[in-house]
Amino acid sequence: MLLHTSCELNFEIPEPTVFVLMLRPRSSQQQWITQEEYRLSPSVQMFEFTDGYGNLCQRLIAPPGDFAVYTAAEVNTPEFVEVAPGAPFVEVQNLPDTALSYLLPSRFCESDRFGQMATEITAGQLLGYDQVLAIENWLRSSIRYEPGSSNVLISAIEVNLKQSGVCRDLSHLGIALCRSLSIPARMVVGYRYGLEPMDLHAWFEAYVGGSWYTFDATQPGPKGGYVAIGFGRDAADVAIYNQFGPPVYPIEQTVSVYLKH
Amino acid sequence: MLLHTSCELNFEIPEPTVFVLMLRPRSSQQQWITQEEYRLSPSVQMFEFTDGYGNLCQRLIAPPGDFAVYTAAEVNTPEFVEVAPGAPFVEVQNLPDTALSYLLPSRFCESDRFGQMATEITAGQLLGYDQVLAIENWLRSSIRYEPGSSNVLISAIEVNLKQSGVCRDLSHLGIALCRSLSIPARMVVGYRYGLEPMDLHAWFEAYVGGSWYTFDATQPGPKGGYVAIGFGRDAADVAIYNQFGPPVYPIEQTVSVYLKH
Amino acid sequence: MLLHTSCELNFEIPEPTVFVLMLRPRSSQQQWITQEEYRLSPSVQMFEFTDGYGNLCQRLIAPPGDFAVYTAAEVNTPEFVEVAPGAPFVEVQNLPDTALSYLLPSRFCESDRFGQMATEITAGQLLGYDQVLAIENWLRSSIRYEPGSSNVLISAIEVNLKQSGVCRDLSHLGIALCRSLSIPARMVVGYRYGLEPMDLHAWFEAYVGGSWYTFDATQPGPKGGYVAIGFGRDAADVAIYNQFGPPVYPIEQTVSVYLKH
Amino acid sequence: MLLHTSCELNFEIPEPTVFVLMLRPRSSQQQWITQEEYRLSPSVQMFEFTDGYGNLCQRLIAPPGDFAVYTAAEVNTPEFVEVAPGAPFVEVQNLPDTALSYLLPSRFCESDRFGQMATEITAGQLLGYDQVLAIENWLRSSIRYEPGSSNVLISAIEVNLKQSGVCRDLSHLGIALCRSLSIPARMVVGYRYGLEPMDLHAWFEAYVGGSWYTFDATQPGPKGGYVAIGFGRDAADVAIYNQFGPPVYPIEQTVSVYLKH
Repeated sequence: MLLHTSCELNFEIPEPTVFVLMLRPRSSQQQWITQEEYRLSPSVQMFEFTDGYGNLCQRLIAPPGDFAVYTAAEVNTPEFVEVAPGAPFVEVQNLPDTALSYLLPSRFCESDRFGQMATEITAGQLLGYDQVLAIENWLRSSIRYEPGSSNVLISAIEVNLKQSGVCRDLSHLGIALCRSLSIPARMVVGYRYGLEPMDLHAWFEAYVGGSWYTFDATQPGPKGGYVAIGFGRDAADVAIYNQFGPPVYPIEQTVSVYLKH
Repeated sequence: MLLHTSCELNFEIPEPTVFVLMLRPRSSQQQWITQEEYRLSPSVQMFEFTDGYGNLCQRLIAPPGDFAVYTAAEVNTPEFVEVAPGAPFVEVQNLPDTALSYLLPSRFCESDRFGQMATEITAGQLLGYDQVLAIENWLRSSIRYEPGSSNVLISAIEVNLKQSGVCRDLSHLGIALCRSLSIPARMVVGYRYGLEPMDLHAWFEAYVGGSWYTFDATQPGPKGGYVAIGFGRDAADVAIYNQFGPPVYPIEQTVSVYLKH
Repeated sequence: MLLHTSCELNFEIPEPTVFVLMLRPRSSQQQWITQEEYRLSPSVQMFEFTDGYGNLCQRLIAPPGDFAVYTAAEVNTPEFVEVAPGAPFVEVQNLPDTALSYLLPSRFCESDRFGQMATEITAGQLLGYDQVLAIENWLRSSIRYEPGSSNVLISAIEVNLKQSGVCRDLSHLGIALCRSLSIPARMVVGYRYGLEPMDLHAWFEAYVGGSWYTFDATQPGPKGGYVAIGFGRDAADVAIYNQFGPPVYPIEQTVSVYLKH
Repeated sequence: MLLHTSCELNFEIPEPTVFVLMLRPRSSQQQWITQEEYRLSPSVQMFEFTDGYGNLCQRLIAPPGDFAVYTAAEVNTPEFVEVAPGAPFVEVQNLPDTALSYLLPSRFCESDRFGQMATEITAGQLLGYDQVLAIENWLRSSIRYEPGSSNVLISAIEVNLKQSGVCRDLSHLGIALCRSLSIPARMVVGYRYGLEPMDLHAWFEAYVGGSWYTFDATQPGPKGGYVAIGFGRDAADVAIYNQFGPPVYPIEQTVSVYLKH
């Protein structure tokens, strides 16, 4: 399906402020960017670099006053993500080098503390895809999904105590559970067609059977219409913006996703 | 200046043909992409990867029949490139690691054979920017520039014998001369506003005084309006398309560059 | 000073077990490896790769039975690390791209929760090196250093609650405090001459004044004799071994560091 | 087999001279470095970096006077390299990204000019390994191998005209022929057990059937005892030393390879 996505951030900047943005989706095996826009108002110089996960990041100094960032894209993405029940667990010795860092615990995914719980949740499952599916199902039935967003970042341990969370929180817990079973898992931030209320979204991917597969405990299946902006170990890596100095929050954030045809 | 650039390639494909395209300009310190399009007709799956020089490359299999690639961008780029007379030669020990590979000879820039000639051309110049400027001036006065393009790739040695060439050829000779003086130099392929006849263009950059500077013996100064698509050691690295299997040539190639404001 | 370092790990492996080792120090601006050994007994095939931080990692499957890993090196390293009181804070816009990921919170360094505390500890200090020095001094006076090692990995928040820790724990807290002030900080694991009791060691580096500087709240100054094996965001990234499957612990771990001359 | 390799270079340096050395073999799937030495006399500061092909390179400024570089290694390497008659050609669309640059022409391998010749040499062969084997056999029977080394670097076209060459020259021609058939091929420089006269050696690898295989038209089969130091497109990329400024040649170069057991 061909989707049009856009995200506009409006700030009132009190003093010159450094931003690192991650707002440019990249073409990949899963999605193809046919058109793209990236505008700042007022226009200031930006520097783009590629981070350690392959994401394109944009660095800039926002000047005092009104400051707007507008990005949009037209993206070909599957109506239904690929599923692969039975896809086998990949033994660590056979993982590609680049997947190995997604086995390690990270800021919001303390996978070193979830071994026993993950074993219980996935008891009786075939090793691999079916384990991750059991984790997704467990999340759906056990952790209450709160649509919308939250500025307070909590970690998988905290999500598990709280028994509820936004999309990011459920993803963190899902990732932590996967990694504790030696299944590489990573955070994805991006757009999803049909999300209600419309907003940026977060989901996760797990590496089984030789590929990365999409999981999302906040949405019913069959799922699709995803547009990824960034990949990383967890939300610390894939913030759509990191801002340094005294905190500045968007006074308005407008996200849209609609179907082109 | 804000430029709109586009390149359309039309092929008649006799049998499924693998292409590696390099047609997506990247945002950088010199240019910012505010809008971008990339369309295939018919639409086929593309895979994008980053090559060893940081260029975005697109891999695909063109199906038999008419096949069109259309890319366009809106780019903020300086009306006049930075110049830096007197910018000093950077001793090899102080070059960034990433510049070192641009000191080595390459397919079309046999810098290992130009030491004496480069020394003569740059005699009396301050080491650094002024040497490269002397090379650019020598190219302009000694090698006849033939606007337009050529499918026959010839190397710096051959260009020097022939005493004439297209933009790519003059760049190859300029690069070979720079490298023979231990000045890192690289090929750039892209667009240039006002080029006559309009076409894709090639120029070169040399690393002096801690930065890459633009040189182009085919255009009068002051120069500007450049939009880079790819960087590499020479034309072998920055072909806008590499095609594998029986050769297929575009039946039409349309390039446009116009001023937005 | 020229140091000889060695680390021998002995395991009893119950079933084939995948290891990712990080035990090969690299030559760098700070240290030069003049001699190096890396032996397994029994010998099995190893695959080496470079992780996202530039560390050399070795992957292998340990066979059942006794299994030993022996690595040694002869390393030229400064007797006293460089210090730079007054070295200024580097504004985020001026940091090299590679330093940016060391600003983010990570598994054991929840820098997103330490802003106020870091501001208090460094009150009145010049921005930059002096802030980090204040943090190091605060750690030394406030967190009791427990020589030796611990298998229980705790995070900066937990260290701060416990008010004591091994070298790794003090480093995590130091790193979290630095990052909360927008100072890039990273974990280093390696050897230190004269450590008592001898063992592997962990310390941290902070990026100020355009360079990475060594800090270590567990050792009195002037400090030196360090040999780095690995760099990363925290202990999750620089484990000297990660082992997958049912846990296996070394039955013996022997570390030596002595002066060659 | 366990080999001990060493290379000593002795220079008389007239004025401070920048070197980029490539003399540290890396552990890989094919070879494992169990011990290694790297010494300079006099000792000067070295900086190590990883080039675009994954080779470890060492940068330094040699001081005036006698200057010696000594490197040695103990390496586990197969007595016989793997061969794979029938291993199929990999369609370009299925090549890993990292193999693509080894399809392009390079300084000493003008593969863009060898299409017809390669087609004739490999006529009737199965696509893939057997084509490369036919090229190796053709080199052995058509280009006279001159043991020893040469300071004059000539390209594949020149080798083909001259009908003779050192190991490097035969490799260049073999690589150019492979690439012209869309088979990725790369240069390897290193040691070979039993070479007469003993010296550094060059051979090539081709990517077929999903792996890189070793080819060497200068040695009879079955071949083995190889220790790779560097990989690249051709000799321009894998010089064991690049030296900048007025040329300096080793007054002595001593290479040894012997069997440990």
